[in-house]
Parts: sequence; structure tokens; C-alpha cells
Amino acid sequence: MANNLVISVDAMGGDKSPRVVIEGLALAQPQNPDIRFLVFGDEDAVREELRRFPSLKKVVELRHTTEVVHNEDKPSQVIRNKNTSMYQAIDAVRRSEAQAVISAGNTGALMAISKMLLKTIQKIHRPAIVSIMPHRYGRYVMLDLGANTECNAVNLAEFAVMGNIMAKHALGIERPRIALLNIGAEEMKGKEEIRHAAQMIRSSSMDIDFIGYIEPHEIPFGKADVIVADGFTGNVALKSIEGTAKLIRAMIKDGIKSSWLAKLGLPFMYFAGKKIAATMNPKLYNGAMFVGLNGLSVKSHGGADGFSYSVAVSNAAKLVRQDFVATIRDELEHIDLEEISQDIFYEVY
Amino acid sequence: MANNLVISVDAMGGDKSPRVVIEGLALAQPQNPDIRFLVFGDEDAVREELRRFPSLKKVVELRHTTEVVHNEDKPSQVIRNKNTSMYQAIDAVRRSEAQAVISAGNTGALMAISKMLLKTIQKIHRPAIVSIMPHRYGRYVMLDLGANTECNAVNLAEFAVMGNIMAKHALGIERPRIALLNIGAEEMKGKEEIRHAAQMIRSSSMDIDFIGYIEPHEIPFGKADVIVADGFTGNVALKSIEGTAKLIRAMIKDGIKSSWLAKLGLPFMYFAGKKIAATMNPKLYNGAMFVGLNGLSVKSHGGADGFSYSVAVSNAAKLVRQDFVATIRDELEHIDLEEISQDIFYEVY
Repeated sequence: MANNLVISVDAMGGDKSPRVVIEGLALAQPQNPDIRFLVFGDEDAVREELRRFPSLKKVVELRHTTEVVHNEDKPSQVIRNKNTSMYQAIDAVRRSEAQAVISAGNTGALMAISKMLLKTIQKIHRPAIVSIMPHRYGRYVMLDLGANTECNAVNLAEFAVMGNIMAKHALGIERPRIALLNIGAEEMKGKEEIRHAAQMIRSSSMDIDFIGYIEPHEIPFGKADVIVADGFTGNVALKSIEGTAKLIRAMIKDGIKSSWLAKLGLPFMYFAGKKIAATMNPKLYNGAMFVGLNGLSVKSHGGADGFSYSVAVSNAAKLVRQDFVATIRDELEHIDLEEISQDIFYEVY
Repeated sequence: MANNLVISVDAMGGDKSPRVVIEGLALAQPQNPDIRFLVFGDEDAVREELRRFPSLKKVVELRHTTEVVHNEDKPSQVIRNKNTSMYQAIDAVRRSEAQAVISAGNTGALMAISKMLLKTIQKIHRPAIVSIMPHRYGRYVMLDLGANTECNAVNLAEFAVMGNIMAKHALGIERPRIALLNIGAEEMKGKEEIRHAAQMIRSSSMDIDFIGYIEPHEIPFGKADVIVADGFTGNVALKSIEGTAKLIRAMIKDGIKSSWLAKLGLPFMYFAGKKIAATMNPKLYNGAMFVGLNGLSVKSHGGADGFSYSVAVSNAAKLVRQDFVATIRDELEHIDLEEISQDIFYEVY
């Protein structure tokens, strides 16, 4: 147990916990031999699952908790109950026992407790939810996906900084292309805060490759590596993309089911279908991260299976290894976004 | 030429005008024997195209114009030039010579001139862009798709009224289910103006089937017949949907191209593929309408072909026949949204 990359785990969150959670850890372990897991949950139930994975057991430290956050619990309630597995798992990051926490439980609760216990990084005004997604030629990161319904220009500029580091660390892109999500390409299009953010990023000393605006239909074709939006807009884009992909999958299935000819042709499509599935497989993109806090808080999909859970664990580990939080701090140390914002404000009015 | 459903046409807008425009009118005519067309454009060029369609010629009145709105022209310029085919075509609606105008030209210009000449219906504060789109089990209308970047609750409630009438008239749905686009289902989710609009619609005497909020991933599965959003959000959802559909089409093509086995299987997929294409074919959904003005202003896609253009013409004709504009006026006559808005405001604060 000498590993010093420690991830704290809420074993009780998600649809089939703790079974899927422990399976996920077991699948993540071989690729991440440097991780140690601090697992919070019902001792008997977790121990029962661990029995199946002897080598995982060696890197797990189990901490018994008595209560669980439920999906219908309100954030205002859960932040007051220290006895839940989720609260305890997050608190381990606050106490510096772990560098990241992962939970498949209630998103609102995870955000609220994380924000309260971990606090935002000194130079960051608002944390954001970020995810890795597939485009035609690779992957991109998008933020904010719903933590902040309304954002000002400073918030958006900060998201650009965090997204930049995220794309470097998690996707290994040397110089990520950063874009602001907007409804037109021209300078004067869209909302004031977006235009203002573009000006701020350009006139700051940030060392990022800012390519301007991106329109939603350009996202899937790899025009940018980092898409920056307020949480409302990001969430709308994300869910529109997911819904459309689901619709087309359903229509293809229906089409094939209703045609005996198509059914006969199905075996021919096997390899082509497999290739598409390998790129677009939603399981490969599990794990929304809550960034901008002193410590990383990761939300796995509640319905994730073991493989999908292990993807979220590995992504979190990648960011921890490269010291994501400290990099954000360093990057922002010499940039005063508030001051730039003021300057632009005076220029405009 | 006794037909009294008159549609005014900007023959010079769009990528391959006036050829595609005239083809579109010719294709729309058999299904719409009650229409007469007032066609504005270069006399020689249009007459040349009309030669191919003798029966169309009988219902076309050609008016020569000397200038054309270009794609790069600014709205502020085009509203001052009365000599363009677009300006003249819209002005025919203002002079009550036509009930609707259609153009495949510059969207911003069409909106600006339409707004200036046709003026918003007395009880409407902001016109909106609306389109008909496919979901898994049928069709829905969505508005605003980009006319208004920011909207207040009154604007959204007015969009609900217009969308309701649009779904009745253009889709033939007797009692359309109306929903506000939001990022959660719970009462308190999302932006203030959306929550406020929900309250307004519920406490008004509007006779509509308001079903509350809809999330973007639910849109493709037919949960609502009318989706109401501000223009920024609606545009983001629309373009995210279009981009994702385009990505998946591209990936399927790539997958099949790169596998000789899949190519062999292709003939088996013919009928299933045709069925999907028949539902999702973007040509079937051409024509964004600019509603809330005294007269209907229709934008065809600039790259539309003749068939696709004819769809936009037929949709516009349907709305005119059922007196769309007058119905909006009637529906709003006895409802004072401003007053309801004030009441809710006093209740909340």
C-alpha cells in the first residue's frame, strides 16, 4: 500500500452499487498500478464484492459508513449529513487523504458537498462540469455542462483555462484549440458575455490557442478540442447530441427489424458496425468531472457498468498524475481576469 | 388568375436562383392549385426558367427587379435598398398583394426587411423563427430558432401561443402538447425566465395543453408537439441535432466504405435505409418561418433543390389557408400577458 495516487470512492452511489463500483475498480487497477483506493460504504456489502478480486483487495482500504445519499435527496439536506458514504469519500479529499473522489450517486448532492468541502481554487470563481466526448476524428472536452446556469465573461474565460489543461492532461493534446460555443461565427454574434469573454481571452496573457467561436453543428467534426459554454447552453448541446444519437440508433434498429432482407444483410455489416460502435460507444465517455475545486470530484453515470466505471477512474487518475489542480493554480497565478474584465468594460462603455 | 391565395416570391435568393426557385414553384403547384405567385426578379432570367413550365406560367405574375441582396450584405444596408427582389417581394405582403413571402436568400436581411415592412402583430412583442422537424413518431415545431438571442417570460409565452397555432395548422394536431425547453424536469430547474413563463402560461386563460418542461434529449422521442425556447437556446439545440445527424451519416458511410463485406451487404439494407431516409430526409423539413408579423415570411434553405423548395411553399400555403396571422390575433385578443406577468412578479417579490 505504498502507492501515493489515492482515489476516494463512494461505493454506495449508482444503480447497482457496490457491485458495479468494485468491478469498476478491479478493471481499472491493472492499467493503473499506482493507484490506492479509499473505499467508503457498507463494510459487509463491500467486503463481499471484494472477495471476487483478490489483487484489488491489496490496494483497497475500506472505511465503513452507515448511511447513503439517495437520488431524491436535496443538496440542502445532504450537505448536513456527515455519515453518508458520499460525504465521507469527498471529505477524504479535503483531509488530503486522497487527490480525487468518484461517485455514481446523486449529481446535485456530489456537486454541493464537493463545493462545500473542497472549496473553489483561489483564482477560480465558479467550478464547472466537464466531460470528454467523441468527434469524428478524435475526442474533445466540453464545459460547463450544467454546474452554472448563468455565467459571465470571467467565468467563461476561466473555463477556457481549465478546459485547456484538461485537454492537455486527459487527451494528451499538446496545444488544444479552444473555442467558445456560439450561434454564429461573426464577431458580433450571440450573447454579450460570450463576445466579452472572447475579448478577454484575446487581450489576456493566457498562452492558449483560442480559435474564436464554434457553432454546435461544427462540434462533431473536430473543429476544436475544447468547447466552452455556460452550463445551460452546454447542457442543452450535450443532451441534444445524446438524444439525436439515441434516436438514430433506435431508427436503424427499427428499420432492420421491420425488413427480413435487412436482417439477412446484417452479418455483412458486422465489422463496419463494430468500428462505429468502437468510436461512439457511450461507455468510453463515462465520467463527468467537477473541476475548479481543490481536488477532483468525478461523477460516474448512475447506470454505468464495471467497464464504464473503470474508464471514469482511469481518466481521473490521469489528471491527478499530472497534477491538474496545481496546474490550474499556476496557470492563473499571473493572470488577473477581473482586471482584464474591468479594462474591457471601460473600453466598451 | 382568379386564385386568391397569393404567395410572393424572391426569385433571386439562394445558391442556384432563379432556376431552383422556379422548379420549386412548379413542383408545389399541382398540390396547391389555389395559389397564385407574384415573382420578383430579373425578368429575362426568370422568363427563361418559366419556359420549361407552361402550366406554372399561367399562375405567375412576373415583376422585374434590378438588384439582388447578397449573402454578405448587412441588414442595416438592405433595409434601405428598395430595388432588390427581396425587398419588393416582402413589400407585396405589406401592400396586401400577397399573404406570404418566400426567399432562399440572406436570412438576416429577410428578417430585418420583414420586421420593418410587415411589423409585429399588435399583441406580439417579438417575432420568432419556427421550423417543422421530425421526431421518432411524427413531427414537431420548435421556436424560436434564432430571431431573439435573449427572451423574457412574456416572449416565451407568446411563442407558446404561436407554436400552438402552427402545430394545429401546419401539422394538423388537434391539441398540441406544448413544452418549454429546459435542462431539468423539476419546477425550480433552469433559468428564471423559463420558470416565470411556465407560471404565466399556467395562470393565463390560454386554452393550450401545456405539459411543462422538456429536456433536449427527450425532443426526438415525441414527448411534445411544440418546443418553446429563446432564440439562442433553440438555435443551439437545432444545430446540435443537425450536426449529430450529419456525423452519424458520415460515420456510417465511412464504415461501409472501409469494409468490402459491408459493401456486399448494402443491397440487403436498401428498403430499411429507404424507410429511415423517408422519415429523416432534411429536404422534407425545409422552410423556417418568421412568425408574429402581419404576414408570413418564409426562409428556404439557400442550398435547397426544387423539391425541397416546394415543401417550404406548401407549408406556407397551409398556414395562409387557415389564416394563421388572424388566428394569432384572435387567440391573444382576450389575454393580457403583460398583466399576468406583472401579477406573477408581485407574487414572487
